[in-house]
Parts: sequence; C-alpha cells; structure tokens
Amino acid sequence: MNSSLKKYTAEFLGTFILVLFGCGSAATAGGNLGYLGIAFAFGLSIVALAYVIGPISGCHINPAVSFAMLLTRKLSGKDFIGYVISQLIGGFAGAGLLYGIIHSTGKSVTNLGQNGFGAGYGIGITDLMAIVVEIVLTFVFIYTILGVTSSASTSAIAGLVIGLTLTFVHILGIGLTGTSVNPARSLGPAIILGGTAFTQVWVFILAPLIGAALAAGAYKWLNSGVKNS
Amino acid sequence: MNSSLKKYTAEFLGTFILVLFGCGSAATAGGNLGYLGIAFAFGLSIVALAYVIGPISGCHINPAVSFAMLLTRKLSGKDFIGYVISQLIGGFAGAGLLYGIIHSTGKSVTNLGQNGFGAGYGIGITDLMAIVVEIVLTFVFIYTILGVTSSASTSAIAGLVIGLTLTFVHILGIGLTGTSVNPARSLGPAIILGGTAFTQVWVFILAPLIGAALAAGAYKWLNSGVKNS
Amino acid sequence: MNSSLKKYTAEFLGTFILVLFGCGSAATAGGNLGYLGIAFAFGLSIVALAYVIGPISGCHINPAVSFAMLLTRKLSGKDFIGYVISQLIGGFAGAGLLYGIIHSTGKSVTNLGQNGFGAGYGIGITDLMAIVVEIVLTFVFIYTILGVTSSASTSAIAGLVIGLTLTFVHILGIGLTGTSVNPARSLGPAIILGGTAFTQVWVFILAPLIGAALAAGAYKWLNSGVKNS
Amino acid sequence: MNSSLKKYTAEFLGTFILVLFGCGSAATAGGNLGYLGIAFAFGLSIVALAYVIGPISGCHINPAVSFAMLLTRKLSGKDFIGYVISQLIGGFAGAGLLYGIIHSTGKSVTNLGQNGFGAGYGIGITDLMAIVVEIVLTFVFIYTILGVTSSASTSAIAGLVIGLTLTFVHILGIGLTGTSVNPARSLGPAIILGGTAFTQVWVFILAPLIGAALAAGAYKWLNSGVKNS
Repeated sequence: MNSSLKKYTAEFLGTFILVLFGCGSAATAGGNLGYLGIAFAFGLSIVALAYVIGPISGCHINPAVSFAMLLTRKLSGKDFIGYVISQLIGGFAGAGLLYGIIHSTGKSVTNLGQNGFGAGYGIGITDLMAIVVEIVLTFVFIYTILGVTSSASTSAIAGLVIGLTLTFVHILGIGLTGTSVNPARSLGPAIILGGTAFTQVWVFILAPLIGAALAAGAYKWLNSGVKNS
Repeated sequence: MNSSLKKYTAEFLGTFILVLFGCGSAATAGGNLGYLGIAFAFGLSIVALAYVIGPISGCHINPAVSFAMLLTRKLSGKDFIGYVISQLIGGFAGAGLLYGIIHSTGKSVTNLGQNGFGAGYGIGITDLMAIVVEIVLTFVFIYTILGVTSSASTSAIAGLVIGLTLTFVHILGIGLTGTSVNPARSLGPAIILGGTAFTQVWVFILAPLIGAALAAGAYKWLNSGVKNS
Repeated sequence: MNSSLKKYTAEFLGTFILVLFGCGSAATAGGNLGYLGIAFAFGLSIVALAYVIGPISGCHINPAVSFAMLLTRKLSGKDFIGYVISQLIGGFAGAGLLYGIIHSTGKSVTNLGQNGFGAGYGIGITDLMAIVVEIVLTFVFIYTILGVTSSASTSAIAGLVIGLTLTFVHILGIGLTGTSVNPARSLGPAIILGGTAFTQVWVFILAPLIGAALAAGAYKWLNSGVKNS
Repeated sequence: MNSSLKKYTAEFLGTFILVLFGCGSAATAGGNLGYLGIAFAFGLSIVALAYVIGPISGCHINPAVSFAMLLTRKLSGKDFIGYVISQLIGGFAGAGLLYGIIHSTGKSVTNLGQNGFGAGYGIGITDLMAIVVEIVLTFVFIYTILGVTSSASTSAIAGLVIGLTLTFVHILGIGLTGTSVNPARSLGPAIILGGTAFTQVWVFILAPLIGAALAAGAYKWLNSGVKNS
C-alpha cells in the first residue's frame, strides 16, 4: 500500500471514529454525560488517535486543521485535497453508523449531534454570533496545535495537549453552537438529517476555515523567532 | 518466584482490580457518577496499574489485548494461555468481592456492572448492533495500544494514553452495551449473576476478539514502515 | 514586531481567552457543567495556552502570577507593568465578548461568571473568610507554578500540571468565592456588571496579590537549596 | 532552615492542603460535584503538590505512604516519626480551617468530609467490609506509588500518575467509606466532629496501614528483579 493511500485511509478512519464517538456520545447519552462528558468524548478521540494514526498522516481528521497545515506549508496542495475528501467521507460514514445504531432501537433519529444556533439550539445565539464563536473556538484549537507541534520537547505529549484543548473548546461551545471547529464533523450529520442542520451547516464550514487562517496568521506573526524551550 | 508465575499473578491482580473498581463503581455509585464517572473508573484502572504491573507482564488485564499481542507475535502461545486463565480468574474474583461488598448492605445483588443489550439495557440496541459496537470499541482501544506502545518516545506516557482511551470507549459505549472490550471484565459478573447477563455474554467474548484481530490487521496494514517521531 | 509587543499581545490574547472561556462556561452553561465542568474550563485554558504563548511571554495571563515572577526576579518592573495592563485589557475584552454573546440571545445579562461572597453567593461565607480563601487558593496555585517551572525535567509537562492545579483550586473555590486567584479575571466582569460584583472586587485584587507574595516567600524559604530530581 | 525542618514543614503544608481542599470540596459542594468531582479534588491535590513539595520531602502527606516508605527502607525511623506528626497536625489544621469557613456562613457544621461506614453512610457496608475496602483501596494506591517512583523514566509524570490513582480509588470508595487511605485525612475531621466519625476512625487508621504493608510486600515479591523500561 503506498504512502499516500495509507495517509488518506488514516484520515478517513480517524474522522469516522471522531464523529461516531463524539457525535454519538452527544446523541445517545448527552443527557447523562452533560456537556463535560461530551467534551471529553470529542477531546479524547484525539488522545486515542494521535498516537496511532499521527505517525501515518499527522492525525488532522479535520479539514480546518489540514487548511492551517496547507497555509503554513506543512501539507502539499495535492495531499490537502486527498485529506479533505477522506475526512468528509469519514465523517459521513461515522454519522451513518451512528444513524444505524440509533435506528436499531426503533426510535426515530432526530439527533446525530448536529451543530446549530438560533432559537431552539443551546442558549439561542444569533447567526452572526455563531460565526464569531466558531471562529474563536477554531482559532484557539488550531493556534494551540501549531504551538505544541512545533517543538521536539513536547512531541510526546502533543496528543494529550491537543485532545484536552479540543475538550476545552467544547466545554464553552456545546451550549452555544455545539462546537464544530471541524467541517467534516458537521457535514456528515447535516447531510443525513437535512432540515435546519443542513441549512445552517455553511456556518460550520466557513467559520472554522476562517479561524484556521487567523490561527496560522497569528502563529506566524506572534511566534516567529520565538525559541521553544 | 519464577518470572512466568509473577506475570500470571500480575495479570490476575490487575484484572481483579479492574473489575472490582470499574464494575464496582457502576454497580454501587453509577447514578451519582454518571457515565463519565464510570468511564474514568475503568480508564484510570489502567493509569494506576500500567506503571506498576506493566513492567512485570505488560498489564494486558484483558484477553482481547493478549490476543492482539499473540497475533502480533509479542506474546507466546504458552503465555497467552497463562495470561487468559489468570485474567478470567481475576475478573471472577473481582466480581465476587464486589458481590460480597453489596451483599453486606443487606440488599439483593442484581447489578455487578454487567454488560448487555436489547430492551431494558441502555438505549436498547439490537444484538447485531451490539456486536458491531463492541467490535468498533475494541478496535479503537487495541489499535491505540499497538500504536502508543510501539515507540520508545512515548513509553513514559503510554499508560496515561491507554487509560484515557479506555475512558474514551466507555463514554460512548456505556449507554449502548456497557462497554466490554474485555471478555474477562464481562464473564465474572455474568457467571455470578446468571440470567440475561449470562445468556448475552457470548457477544462480549466474541466481539472483542474480532475487534482485536481487526486492530492487529489494521496496524500491520497501515502502520508498517511508518516511522514514529 | 518587537519582542516586548509580542509578549504583551500574547498576554492580552491569553487573558482574553481565559476569561471568555472560563467565565463564559460558568455564565452560559454552569448549571449543566456543574462546578467540575467549570473548573476544567478554567484549568484547560492553561493547558491550551501554555504550549503556544508560553514560549512567547511565559503565559502568565494573571497579574498575581506576574507579581510572583516580579518578586522572584523572573520579570522586570517594566515588563510587569506591560503584562498587567495587557492582562487587564484582555480580561475586559473577554468579558465584553461574553456580554455580546449572551446579549444576542435577547436575555438580560446578569451573569458573567463574576466572583463574590456573602449572602446570595455560593454557600455565603463572610468577607473575611473570602479573603482567607482567596489567599489560600492563590498560594497553592502560584506555589505550584514556582515549583514545576523550576526544573528542566518537568518543563514539558508544566502546562498540564499548572492547568490541572487551576482546575484543582476551582473545584473547592467555586462554591465559596467563585475562585478568582486572578485580578484580571475578576475585574473584567465586575466593571461590566457593576453592582455587588464591582463593590466586592477589591477582595479579588488584594487577596490574590497577598497569596502570590506568600507563595514567593514560601518558595524561597522552603525550596531554596532543594535539588529537583 | 535545616533540611529536616523543611521536610516536616512541607509535609504539614501538603497535608493541610489535601484535607482542606479534598474534605472541603466534599463538605461544601459535594452535591454539586458528585463523587467524580470530589475524587478529582483529592487526586489533583497530589498533582498540585508533587511538583513543588515532592523535591523537598517526597510529598507523602499521608502516614500510610510514609509507613510504606519506612518498610521499603526509603525513610528513616526518625523521619517517619517527624513526617507522621507533621501530617497529623496538617490534617487537623486543614479540617480546622474548613470548620471556620463553613461556620462563617452561620450554619451548624456536621460535615467535614469525614469517613465512615454502616447505616446512614454511603451504601451502608459493614465494619468488616469497610476494613476490607480500605485495605484494597490503600493497597492499590500505594502499590502504584512504589511502581511509578522506582524508574527514572517515569519520574516526570509520577505526580500525575499518583494523583490520578488517588482519584481512581476515590471514584469507587466515596460511596463505600468515603475513601480514607490516609489516617491524617481521617483523623482531623474525626477529632473536630466527634460522634460516629470519631468512634469509627480506628478503621481508617488501621486499614490503611495494613494496606500499605501489603503493598510493600507485594512490590517486593512481584516487582523485585523486574526491569523498568
């Protein structure tokens, strides 16, 4: 199996697991877990996967992360396309298996952990605020990734730090937008559910990409020439 | 005491603690802890044990993990048998002490943290979906183990990562099957309780072994020739 | 961009994120998260930020931490002033965006995660006890920071340890004073909300500074000449 | 200040903080935190303290730990006495300040996070089972300590692992005995409260010491000659 195919397979597999476990925890046990439990479900997906698919593909499992890596010249344009396609398929597959699991209980499936905003979702913030929130959440997540992966001294714990940072941005964000910061995580559930999840999904594609670009810019601007200890 | 006997004793002791604390937390305090608390009870058993019995036996404390190590030629056939017998006895002993603790309160003992599926267990998924879920949960758990233990650079934190990954697969799985991923964890409670727990236990023996085999295959297929940083 | 401006920008950005996410989690989702979830929101802000702005400015994001660094001669007087001003502006900006997010839902904004004490806040401790509690909480937080950052062997995990220590002091303190240990975290919400939050805010400026001075003294007294392993 | 006095002061200070924060979280916010939150309060006390008083005294802050260190010849008889006296005074002081904090709210103080068993405490296990439970909890806690502190490769993360192990033994134990594993943590609240807490406290002195001795024995028996990686 050639190296590119391994990478794309790893990104597919990782995004599949992220969506199945993260969105699945929210959809099947959110009331029991609370926001903190859901936040750990998403965050620990990175802890679990970084140490096994990280060495293959870098464990982006998120088009916004791959976009930041493209902008900072750590990913080629060809691999960017391959990664994103793999991630989108993985997210769709994860949401699909989640649909099957819930469907097998005989209940109708209305919750796949989809993101959203406005009346009836979380505390009901506006579309404009949803965009601002997702930009900020993604900025924090990806700015941290760029920092912790830049130094050899922290490479062993980078997976832990990135996973806990994903937990961090979920703790605040779940009650606001459900926390996307990842177009592939949002698109799978939105396509399967349709309705409001689908009409709002553009926010969860656009805002994470803007947040990623801002993180790449801030990292270049603030961290260039800074020596990691 | 010879080296093999030490290993088998360590596996007995570790599985005893895993089942007593993990199943015990679910059975005696599940309502207070919620799924997240139970997930940490299981996951932190690995954090606690990896750094003290890991150097003796590798701290498998799970026949599915030992099976994956057999398939990847990190465990001999003779030790595989010794490990699994020790783990099964340990799981039975842990469930037995848990029975005694609950019995001492004068209540009848109907909950030893047993796994299950179908009507009346979690969200009520079907037997087929329970098999799929357990295969996926075990795959993720063991694929991560194979990754994080393969590199010297992550050996110090491997116990933390594996423990948090066991927490991860519990967060999603508790509401579906109770999360086995470990035949020894399921068999002890099932034997003592009998009834549905016992008639369903074959799922929690078979599916984790399939998940382990798939993880070993995926690891060989995707991670061979990949250089860990 | 010169090095000082980078540092001050990093401190602004970090304090902005700390207040937005920590106070924001308490204000918008405190009932769902419980004290443990809020404690992780504050604590994980350090985990997220230490590995990306730590190399720039040290990631104090707290005037009491900067004060301890001034006292232990790890920060110049000029930088102390620059850091504190940046932190105060960052805390105000974080509280301001939080105000905007909640305001966008159409509800009146009465909770920005402000600190407090007395009747109607937490268990209702007195002003004197609030001062004692904040001194103790800050002492523990900053004494740990001084310890874990003093040894090269723990530099890779210092961000994790400091973040978990901030979580630690929140678990106890949220029900007592809301846990400040950080004047910039308290002042932003207090200025925007006014009322009791503002009239009580002097406690959350004074006590953390006293706690910081005591931590610096204890560190000098107890840890001088101690060899870190 | 001479080296012995520094050690004893560190043990006093550490046990004071352990009891104030751990018992304090249980007593003032246990209903909000749940067992998981209380378990983190106790466990994170070790994370916070190990990296700052660990280099001074080893951060035992628990007579059972000091007893295991005495048995494994890592602590002299003279220091054992000094450590235990310091720990007992620290535990008493921590419980005393906690009393003052709660008393300042005007409520009568009946909960200082005391340990217990029998009718009206947790699930109501018998005295015999309480002894068994405390022996097992302490065994796991101290056996892990002996393992993780024996290897240079894990010294940087030992504080994290020990803290998470203390969290681990609390998750199961809070609903059974409140989890002592530490005579100094039990004696302070018991002396101040009197009544049942005091008449039962012998269990929480005796059983942890037995558990410590068994852990030292198991470590010698199982781990001798084992090479840590």
